Amino acid sequence: MLDASNEREAFDRDHFFHPSTHMGTHARGESPTRVITGAEGVRITDATGRTHVDAFAGLYCVNAGYGRTEIADAIAKQAHELAYYHAYVGHGTDASIQLSKMIIDRAPEHMSRVYFGLSGSDANETNIKLIWFYNNVLGRPEKKKIISRWRGYHGSGVMTGSLTGLQLFHNAFDLPRAPILHTVSPYYFRRQDRSMSEAQFSQYCADQLEEMILAEGPDTVAAFIGEPVLGTGGIVPPPAGYWQKIQAVLDKYDVMLVADEVVTGFGRLGSMFGSDHYGMKPDLITIAKGLTSAYAPLSGSIVSKRMWDGLVSGVDELGAFGHGWTYSAHPICAAAGVANLKLIDDLALIDNVREVGPYFLAGLKDALEGHANVGEVRGEGLLAAVEFVADKDDRRFFDASEKVGPKIAAALFERGVIGRAMPEGDILGFAPPFCLTKEDADLIVAKTKEAVRHVLG
Amino acid sequence: MLDASNEREAFDRDHFFHPSTHMGTHARGESPTRVITGAEGVRITDATGRTHVDAFAGLYCVNAGYGRTEIADAIAKQAHELAYYHAYVGHGTDASIQLSKMIIDRAPEHMSRVYFGLSGSDANETNIKLIWFYNNVLGRPEKKKIISRWRGYHGSGVMTGSLTGLQLFHNAFDLPRAPILHTVSPYYFRRQDRSMSEAQFSQYCADQLEEMILAEGPDTVAAFIGEPVLGTGGIVPPPAGYWQKIQAVLDKYDVMLVADEVVTGFGRLGSMFGSDHYGMKPDLITIAKGLTSAYAPLSGSIVSKRMWDGLVSGVDELGAFGHGWTYSAHPICAAAGVANLKLIDDLALIDNVREVGPYFLAGLKDALEGHANVGEVRGEGLLAAVEFVADKDDRRFFDASEKVGPKIAAALFERGVIGRAMPEGDILGFAPPFCLTKEDADLIVAKTKEAVRHVLG
Repeated sequence: MLDASNEREAFDRDHFFHPSTHMGTHARGESPTRVITGAEGVRITDATGRTHVDAFAGLYCVNAGYGRTEIADAIAKQAHELAYYHAYVGHGTDASIQLSKMIIDRAPEHMSRVYFGLSGSDANETNIKLIWFYNNVLGRPEKKKIISRWRGYHGSGVMTGSLTGLQLFHNAFDLPRAPILHTVSPYYFRRQDRSMSEAQFSQYCADQLEEMILAEGPDTVAAFIGEPVLGTGGIVPPPAGYWQKIQAVLDKYDVMLVADEVVTGFGRLGSMFGSDHYGMKPDLITIAKGLTSAYAPLSGSIVSKRMWDGLVSGVDELGAFGHGWTYSAHPICAAAGVANLKLIDDLALIDNVREVGPYFLAGLKDALEGHANVGEVRGEGLLAAVEFVADKDDRRFFDASEKVGPKIAAALFERGVIGRAMPEGDILGFAPPFCLTKEDADLIVAKTKEAVRHVLG
Repeated sequence: MLDASNEREAFDRDHFFHPSTHMGTHARGESPTRVITGAEGVRITDATGRTHVDAFAGLYCVNAGYGRTEIADAIAKQAHELAYYHAYVGHGTDASIQLSKMIIDRAPEHMSRVYFGLSGSDANETNIKLIWFYNNVLGRPEKKKIISRWRGYHGSGVMTGSLTGLQLFHNAFDLPRAPILHTVSPYYFRRQDRSMSEAQFSQYCADQLEEMILAEGPDTVAAFIGEPVLGTGGIVPPPAGYWQKIQAVLDKYDVMLVADEVVTGFGRLGSMFGSDHYGMKPDLITIAKGLTSAYAPLSGSIVSKRMWDGLVSGVDELGAFGHGWTYSAHPICAAAGVANLKLIDDLALIDNVREVGPYFLAGLKDALEGHANVGEVRGEGLLAAVEFVADKDDRRFFDASEKVGPKIAAALFERGVIGRAMPEGDILGFAPPFCLTKEDADLIVAKTKEAVRHVLG
């Protein structure tokens, strides 16, 4: 459509308000515009012809890999047959019904139904509304507070950005808002008391949660939300025994668990869901990215049988449930979801996660753990992170103004690989497509080692 | 995919949590499941082979009409070329950049840039965050309240559902939440003082708004949000002079205007935007439905030059703008938007709105205004509504429990036409695709007349 690349650049700078982009430098042309034109497997290509290995799968979402004809064909077929009809008042399409069934077949045993949205953020909006509605139905109108964790990521809206526990998403937006609270982050590497073992630290996290519930009053605390593995907060697997201890506290005070599986759902940890991986018993599971591998926008809230039964009993009394998105269960997005989940099965991609994930992590550890500024190399499944420190023995962090993480990500980009500088701390994150080969894993490791040496020596 | 219709029904009832659907009756099979399989022009077809004229264009969103090969082809092409890459940190695709330019070319003169989302709800989330951020940048941290209107519809999230001014969307969800306030609905037919002229009522609405701003303190009121024509609240065009008088109050107290054009944007009123149609000067315009004619989920916040300049000055000081959706400017959705806006131009569909809209409204008036239970027939462009009353002279309304509106919508459905029973009041709404012919307009009118006579005699 756009003939000249400089015309395209001008349109971009003048009219396109990019997400999570420095508006000033972008509008003034001080930071690069990058137009992506094609992609295949784990590689993306831009308008200048440069190709990169995308070791972050977009925003940890293109799980099936780029250029999957099977998913594109399903989208094209649905677009030509029926691009849209709504799902209100009992309406559906073959794809949306089929996908509901496929999700519940894959979800933990005790889950019952799926409410579809577009993004992880709106799915967590739905979750908040479901939690409040449910407790109103059960006649406990005071039980409404939701406890999240520092460094959790649960969205970018007003309430979902409040659930998120990262300063970048709160600053200058007047967040977080009531009734959202934050408890300690299950981040063993950054624990304050370094004498604690992992098990002790897990107990400490559970104790802190219990203390908060008691201080607030158990009758006022409705739910706890957490990602099985912290994502945007730093890609941090939980310390040993964490979820068992947390689950026990939640059960004790009748506090519901929301497992935010936007990143972990559908195989990223090598299990279908992180809830299964860690033995969590959520009442709600948030899904998005991996549901369609980002080929079309689709999210969902998976609702437990217990919650569904409560909701139904309330609706019988209260009447209609006034909550809907125009594009809930959009036919094209549902068709993408069906094709994507089928492809993940057909190609046994989760098996590949289980095989290549540990291989990749071992490679990163082998290449980097010995470096004086590498504090930790960690991961689970096909999620991995390298955390940099100014001093290893003292676990002293770099000053944020030094931008060590972003500099290493930039050096890696120059070497043909995309990793992500996580927003808080100097952490280089990886979340490649599930089809990553060992050869490409080796390449990412080698280039990362080069990039680290380039920046830190 | 689903072979047997009874298997499909079972999956649907057991696993699919439909939006805005009575969960109990649906799960128990007491209300119908309806699977849509195809559509063409203004007609949709279900799995049993029944075809209906969709006089509500889905949820007033399939503006270009169903079965548009041009849009489906664009989606298919993009799906095969590059289904996804993110738009963070200055990334884009040909389609997203092109669409930014097309939107700003069509928007009111003083608008500058587009921030993309998926739904009208998330676009209004973005708007709230932009408004708060902007006033923080300008050093007025107390100026944060947002005034909406009773019967406004602005979304279904926690905060956007708070902006919405309809009981159905507040009940049992603990909404609305601070700092959202509601002022009087610009609903002339339902004015309390029936002696008022339209101009007097507009003045009254402006006075009520000014009184609220003064009572709250102008330094605490950031913005006013309104649909140019009330949508889900009843399809109500504003009384004469309303927006001029409201705009004057907003200007007086430096309160920003958000024009929620999810329904009205891109031609539904016969003008490209309702803001132009009524001479509004918004700082933000919410867009969604008509942007893609629902062929793919896409929304946006159009930001004025004034607001953009303020945001840039703040970001230069504060750093990154921590707000992003994974699927902002999704390539497939952007491609659908480009093809849709082009098609609307190529087929001169807005000209058709200007021609067939008034013809349809005149037909409805002619057929129904004489009926003893028809209180008002109103509309603008291709939006129209018929409001039913128990007593015309006393303007006495039916009791909601009689379900007069839903019964008439059901009778109309039985006659092959889909209208929408609006949620508050007995109001039958119409918002057909822009390609409506005069013949189909006549058909809708005739069937509506039959349905009204069937229910009300």
